Order: sequence, then C-alpha cells, then structure tokens
Amino acid sequence: MSPLSPEALERLVAALPEGVVATRAETLEKYRHDGANDPTAQLPLACVRAESTDHVVTTMRWATEHRVAVVPRGAGTGLSGGASGQSGAITLSTERMRAVEVDPASRTVVVQPGLLNAEVKAAVAEHGLWYPPDPSSVQICSIGGNLATNAGGLCCVKYGVTADYVLGLEVVLADGTVLRLGGRHVKDVAGLSLMPLFVGSEGTLGIITSATLRLVPAQRPAATLVATFPTVAAAADAVVRVGRDVQPSMLELLDQAAINAVEDYAPMGLDRDAGALLLAQSDAPGAARAAEVELVERAFEAAGALEVFSTDDVDEGELFIQARRLALPALEQRGRVLLEDVGAAVPLLPDLLARIEAVAARHGVAIPVVAHAGDGNTHPIIVVDTDDPDGEAKAQAAFVDVMAAAVEIGGTITGEHGIGRLKRDALPTQLGPEVMTANRRVKDALDPLGLLNPGVLL
Amino acid sequence: MSPLSPEALERLVAALPEGVVATRAETLEKYRHDGANDPTAQLPLACVRAESTDHVVTTMRWATEHRVAVVPRGAGTGLSGGASGQSGAITLSTERMRAVEVDPASRTVVVQPGLLNAEVKAAVAEHGLWYPPDPSSVQICSIGGNLATNAGGLCCVKYGVTADYVLGLEVVLADGTVLRLGGRHVKDVAGLSLMPLFVGSEGTLGIITSATLRLVPAQRPAATLVATFPTVAAAADAVVRVGRDVQPSMLELLDQAAINAVEDYAPMGLDRDAGALLLAQSDAPGAARAAEVELVERAFEAAGALEVFSTDDVDEGELFIQARRLALPALEQRGRVLLEDVGAAVPLLPDLLARIEAVAARHGVAIPVVAHAGDGNTHPIIVVDTDDPDGEAKAQAAFVDVMAAAVEIGGTITGEHGIGRLKRDALPTQLGPEVMTANRRVKDALDPLGLLNPGVLL
Repeated sequence: MSPLSPEALERLVAALPEGVVATRAETLEKYRHDGANDPTAQLPLACVRAESTDHVVTTMRWATEHRVAVVPRGAGTGLSGGASGQSGAITLSTERMRAVEVDPASRTVVVQPGLLNAEVKAAVAEHGLWYPPDPSSVQICSIGGNLATNAGGLCCVKYGVTADYVLGLEVVLADGTVLRLGGRHVKDVAGLSLMPLFVGSEGTLGIITSATLRLVPAQRPAATLVATFPTVAAAADAVVRVGRDVQPSMLELLDQAAINAVEDYAPMGLDRDAGALLLAQSDAPGAARAAEVELVERAFEAAGALEVFSTDDVDEGELFIQARRLALPALEQRGRVLLEDVGAAVPLLPDLLARIEAVAARHGVAIPVVAHAGDGNTHPIIVVDTDDPDGEAKAQAAFVDVMAAAVEIGGTITGEHGIGRLKRDALPTQLGPEVMTANRRVKDALDPLGLLNPGVLL
Repeated sequence: MSPLSPEALERLVAALPEGVVATRAETLEKYRHDGANDPTAQLPLACVRAESTDHVVTTMRWATEHRVAVVPRGAGTGLSGGASGQSGAITLSTERMRAVEVDPASRTVVVQPGLLNAEVKAAVAEHGLWYPPDPSSVQICSIGGNLATNAGGLCCVKYGVTADYVLGLEVVLADGTVLRLGGRHVKDVAGLSLMPLFVGSEGTLGIITSATLRLVPAQRPAATLVATFPTVAAAADAVVRVGRDVQPSMLELLDQAAINAVEDYAPMGLDRDAGALLLAQSDAPGAARAAEVELVERAFEAAGALEVFSTDDVDEGELFIQARRLALPALEQRGRVLLEDVGAAVPLLPDLLARIEAVAARHGVAIPVVAHAGDGNTHPIIVVDTDDPDGEAKAQAAFVDVMAAAVEIGGTITGEHGIGRLKRDALPTQLGPEVMTANRRVKDALDPLGLLNPGVLL
C-alpha cells in the first residue's frame, strides 16, 4: 500500500466527533502492545476509539477508500498478538462501546463489545442470570475480545465456550457493510451459518459491534476439591479417570513450578513439594453434588493422589480458584514468558504433558504448566532465561516444538487464545494446505482487499 | 449448462464400482422426492450411491469437469425439498456410507453420514453414552442429513442442536478437495471456524463424508408431565412461565387439531376438547427432578391448566412422547400438508401462535400446530383442502404469510428443517440484502461453479 497523505487522515479525524481519533504518539503508545507483549509490535498510524456502530462504519468506509489496514482491538488483553499495533494501520478500539441491555424474559443480553466480561456477568447477575464463559482474565478482558477469539476459561469443561452463547451479532465488514445476524431466538437455520464464522475470526473478517448472548440461570453454589499428586503424569491420569465418570464444572491443573510461582507471589499454603495439583468443582444440584464430589475423589485416589481436600464453603473454594487465576501473573513476575495454548482430546492429556516435559528438557528451558485439564486445553508457559545469551532462541525453539507436539497427536496449537501474530507460522502445519486454502478463500470473499487485521491468523 | 453427452455419464459409471451409479428410471424414481414431497421434484440424471469418501471425490471431480450439478442426499427424509431430484443433476446419496466407531475414552463417535440417527444413538448407548439430538424422524433420518440441516428435535430445549455436538468433519468440496476439520478435542480456535459453516449448509458448500461427534453420559430417567389447557394462548403463556423458572429436558405443544389427529390415528385417550396440550420432561438428577417437576406444575397451573398429570414411569412417559412424534404422520393422513418451521424467542411464542391463528382465519385454511415450544420453534402444518378448487392457492398463500409473521416479530422462517427449495423465496425477507450478499460471497468462495445443490437455500 502506498503511504497515506496527511490530508487523508485529517478527513477521518474530521468525519468523527472530537476525541474519537487519537493521533498523538503518547496516546498511541497505549495501543502498541496487547497482552502478548510482542517485542515487534509497532505504533499505529492512529487509533479510533469508536463510540457507535456508525463510527465503525465511517472508519471502515474510509479505510476501504484509502486502502488502509485496520487492527480491531478490545481491551488489549489478548495473548497472541492479535491486537498488536501495526505501523501504517489504524487501530480500531471498541473500548468506549459499553451499552448493555438484559432481557430476563428471553434470558438474553445485548451487549456492545467494549464491556468487560466481568461487567456482563455483573449486569445479568442482577436478574438472577449467568453468562458462563470465564477466561482467567475475566476482570480485564472485553466481551468483544472474547468473541473475536472464541474465548474459553475455567467453566467450559461443563458449560462450553463463547461461541456456545452467541445468538445474534452485528458485524461491520471491511467495506462498511453492516450485517445483522441471528436474534434472540435460540434455533435458526435460515441461510448459511455466518455467525460462528465471525466468532473466533480475530478481527480478520469483520468488526463485531453488538452481540446478543444467551444466558442461563444463576450457577448453583459449587463444592470444591483440591488434590495433590506426586507427578504431573499421575494428575493427568486422574483427569482421564474423572472424564470417564463425571462432568465437573471445573477441572484445572497446576504443575510444581506453577504451584511454587503462586506461593512466591501470594502465599496460601499450597504444597510446594507436590508434583501437581488438581482443582475441581461440582455445581450439580442438591444431593447429586455430594455424589459427584465422591466420584471425583475416588478417581483422584485411584490415580494416586497424595492428599484430597474438599469443601462446600464457597468462599474457601474461591480462594483456590484465585490461586489458579494468579498462576500466569505470578510466572510473569519471573520475566518475559511465551504462553502456549495447546490442547488435545482428554485421553491424550498424559501424552501431551509428557511431550511438553520432553521439549523442556531438550531445549533446557523451564516450561511450567497450568491447564484447563478437564477439556484437554493446556497452557505451558515458557519462561525466557534472560541470563542465558541463547535464552530467547531456546525459548522460541521450545515454543515451536510444543505446538508441533500437539499437532503430532492430532490436537490443536490453540484452544482458546487464537493464532494472532505469534502462532501464524505454525497454523499450516495443523490445518494442512487444503484447509488453509479454504480459510483464505473465505477471508478473500468477505475482505477482498485484505484490510482487516492483516498478518493475523492467515 | 450444455447437455451432457452419454459418453460423459458412461465415464462416471466406469470410474466407480459396479452398482454404485444407478441410471435406470425405476431406480431413479426413488430419488425423485424427499420428505417434502414437492410436486415439482424431478427425476435425476443418475444417482451415485457412494460407498466411500473416494467415491464422493471421484463424483465431484467428474461433476466439476463436466459442469454437472450435484444434489447431496442422506436418507431423503428432509422436509424442505433440499434433496429433491433435479433433472440433469446427479443425486449423490450417502446411504451406503455407514461406518461407526465409538471412542468411550474421549466420549466421541466417528460416523459416516449414511447411518441413521437412531443407529448412532444405539451404537453409543452400548458404551453408556448418549448422542442427544433427536428430530421426530429419529428412526428414519440419517446423521448426514441431520448435519446438513443442523437438525434439532425434542431435547434441544436443554441439550442444543446438531451443531453443538460436532467436533470434527471430513468434507468434500465441489472440486473434489477433501477438508479435514477439527478432531476429537473439544476446544480449538486454530483458523477460521469453517466447521459450523458446513453444518446446516444443506449440501450447498460441500458433502460431509465423516463426522466426529461429542457424546454425553447416558440420560438419566426422566419424569414426564402432561397438561391440558383451555386455549393455545394459555398453553403458550405456560411455556413462557416455565422458561423463567426452570430448564426442562423437553417442552412440546400440540393444539386441539393436532390432538384430535393423533387420537384419530392412534387413540390413547387424550382430551379431544382441550385447546392445547403441553408435554414436559425433567431429567434432573435425584431430588432435583421432583423439585423441577413441581416448578413446571406450578407454572402450568398459574397459566390456567385444566388438568396436570405427572409420572416417574419411563414407559408411560414414552407413550406420550410417541403421541407427539405421531402428530405429523397423523396429519399427513388427511392429505397433502405444507409443513412450517417458524420460530421466535420464547417470550414471543404467544404472539407468534396468535399470528398463525390469524393467518389460518384470513385464508380459511386449517393450520394445526405442534411445537418444540420450550425453544420457541413451532411447526404449523397447513393442510391442503383438495375439495376446494382454490385449496392449493390458499395453502400456498398461508404458507408465505406464516413465514412473514415470524419475520415480523424478529424470528426465523426455519428453526431446524432448513430452507431447501420450498422456503428459498422467503429467505431474503428474513436476512435482508446485506446478509444475502454475504451468504452468496461465501457460497461462491467455496463452490465457484455453483455445482452443489443449486436452487437450494440461495
């Protein structure tokens, strides 16, 4: 693309209300990085802080006219570099689009993309309703970003992912066309299923400006189990055993390094000597909950648990979940990390975790692991050793090999974070040339000029 | 397209094993109609009864070379004419592709498309597992057809639709390219979400040759409630009240005409004078089931139920469900019917049903209604009065107006049957020009020659 004239950018500034378009370097600096902290992220040309669908339409029409790339951005907490600033591109932030309207009668909520996930949960909780998807970043991530990455979280072992809750979408295409898909009704097969195509498309097909989300009754109080195991392998075996018998509402794993990082960061008396820790919850109704807890306990014991603790106290349970949520921030205290998101079918979890250990040993890097173990989605966290002159290279090599290990066993290089810019090179290995071509054809059909988030995903 | 030379068809016959390609008129006659019994259905040029993915690839490569249209077909039970034979086109039947492999460890099953839904359920039940989607035609419809229409059924009020159970797909594109999407793992955001795009695409984007489906533990025994109401409006009000408080595993409605049709066809002592009947089930575990049953009973009574009956006897409950499943065959005894599939958000169900009554009155046609009321999906059944010379015209006018009524209140013209050929003209009214264009662009991207099921959906 040829360089943009200053006059062209001025026309965009003038076409939108005062303060919507940021152009000063000190402001744009805030839009350079997302949660991936990619060192190659750049300062965008400008940032449009859209306040309405109309602002998004205006921006996309302008971008199409001037052939300017647009990087859509939610709260900027993404972990794959999908919202990293790009030199010469507009960053289109939806942070100011924060309307929310709950309809208890149809158990739905209509939200604009800038609302945080936790704010959506709070808004619907006032009506005794629950929006389940809960990424660990629930307090700081936006619902627009959740939609763009098809975010998961801790409860998806039982309650599914973001896509499972989307009934309607308003999407602005690259040329400024507004699509309104679906509605408040739960079943609809009229026309091709375009809605799920936009969910998880990481801003490469369109910009989601409104979503109608399905809600469920408030979650019942959950019982919590915590168990320690001598090894990661024993804990993984326990997860497979649980999966055969029961559907917990949460089943998370921390390995020894993750346990110790959490203890260093916010001590709560976890067993630093344990090889791994599993954290499970059951929110089954009434007496079924006790029965589920017992089945989980038995599976844990059969797999060789060192200690199993369970509690019906909701606050006590929440403390353990907090520990799990702190694992990533705790490990980030130790320096730059490369965060993986590989997954496989649950029975292959022991194999996947063993392969990750082998990658760590082969490259001489530390790879602590936390995992949404119950659905086979793991987050190996590669810590860059900055004291080692080869530390960065070793970490990058391990990053690639962990993804390769997941593909080798038929799994995925990303369960819930997205491909972004960081995993783009690994995507063809997983998908193969035929599926890559089909991806490209669909992308070209909806964004023929390639303006939306170029360099991400494809 | 120019007429095909006889030599070209001979080449297809020769390229596939003996007996795979049918060309005789008496055989082809079986592939003229599907469950819609569309009078405009035609005799296909030939029918390929593919026995493997390779046969499908061979057929599609041949079709691309000779520019021949292909109508994919499962068991031929579709209700929208999506598999109606077309003169000059190949019908590609998957009825012979019947492999099935259950993997209890990952709770998944890999199936070829020709297996019937009931056969999938039976295969997985041997391992204590359950595949929930259950169209009323469960005994005679194929899983491939279920995937092509994103079929629903009676349990989807609690358990969702076909798309909610698809983890992996093998799809043959129009040019013979084989796509392998997803796998056995439950979370995957690597690349665009192409998989849901094929589900419900009615054979217009590709031919599904294998699917990996997610399974759940065997359903618990359900309690069944049956209640009669003085009017359809009172029953609809009861559905809205239930929806506020509780998530039954089934919530079906029959109006007076449907009740009487069932009683004529297979008498079981239903109240012929009732304005409507609701049939609900709860499969909650343990004591939670009794609590749910009580909440449903209270909602029914608050809405003015005439009589409420409940039973924990599974066989007795099954009898009532059979009555529900018989409603369509019973009404078909009365002559040709036009089957609707309109839906709306549950709180709008009373409005939708009132509008359908108004359409019936306006055109002077009988429109008995059965409905998956719990998810707002209704099946008004327009009975063509063959004694009236204007009967066909009146029925067609009513068919169009019922769909218009659903669109007017923000609902859908099809919740689970698909657009097929019968509802194609109504689709633009629901979707609008922007979404129609987006549909067309995606179709053109994956089937640029327009060979797959032309005339269906778009």
